[in-house]
Amino acid sequence: MHNVSKMRINKPACDVFEAFVDPAQIGHFWFSSGDARWEAGRTIKLRYEEYDADGEIEVIEIVENEKIVFAWHYGEDKHTVAIILTVPETGSTVVEIVEDGFKDSGEGWLALLVDNKEGWVYMLTCLKAYLEFGISGLRAALVK
Amino acid sequence: MHNVSKMRINKPACDVFEAFVDPAQIGHFWFSSGDARWEAGRTIKLRYEEYDADGEIEVIEIVENEKIVFAWHYGEDKHTVAIILTVPETGSTVVEIVEDGFKDSGEGWLALLVDNKEGWVYMLTCLKAYLEFGISGLRAALVK
Repeated sequence: MHNVSKMRINKPACDVFEAFVDPAQIGHFWFSSGDARWEAGRTIKLRYEEYDADGEIEVIEIVENEKIVFAWHYGEDKHTVAIILTVPETGSTVVEIVEDGFKDSGEGWLALLVDNKEGWVYMLTCLKAYLEFGISGLRAALVK
Repeated sequence: MHNVSKMRINKPACDVFEAFVDPAQIGHFWFSSGDARWEAGRTIKLRYEEYDADGEIEVIEIVENEKIVFAWHYGEDKHTVAIILTVPETGSTVVEIVEDGFKDSGEGWLALLVDNKEGWVYMLTCLKAYLEFGISGLRAALVK
């Protein structure tokens, strides 16, 4: 099973792509920091200062300005995440997030799926605010 | 079954409350327009211009600056939505949305639940951007 989330961002695909792969930008809309530029084959350590949490992703595939694929642990499973950028017209980008690997049974499976959707939609909206309006102050405000 | 979403907004509860009940404000963060001020017992027509869609809510309960409860149709069922405002410290408000009435079986039940979570988290993030930063340009960007 997978979760799919899609948002239109009124910026060129290269700006959206750079926001994900450039470690200087992630703190404006998602994790507080990353330790390296996202490149295929690299493991990137991510830090969520506000929740005192650390994570890491294994970058599997990068197609500049078009696609980023990585693996991470979610719950007790390893999931694959594809970030796919398409350009419906010049200056706009549709960002599609597809996370694969969800189970549809077992302890807490439904909460994991719904929480994951919450996280992606929140990140995408924060990304839109950052890229279109230069605002970094929306992240880390979900209350669990 | 229910969906619960919570976000911290760094504005007083009266500002958050007014953003929901004042029809002049909803277009900055959610539907494009509403036809009247939200008051208990009223049916409010809501318009989503970008999707050429109309809906309505029945306002059940209003506690000024604290709580709004309404009913609406979601899928084939009638759901109840509670918007609960709490104040963790002066000048900040936690907005909690509790939507009740989901089924856990039948055609498309899971997609309805996950889509509903998407909608609430998106609206809450747009509301935060509107109230804290005066930005109205985040809404209506989800791609289905």
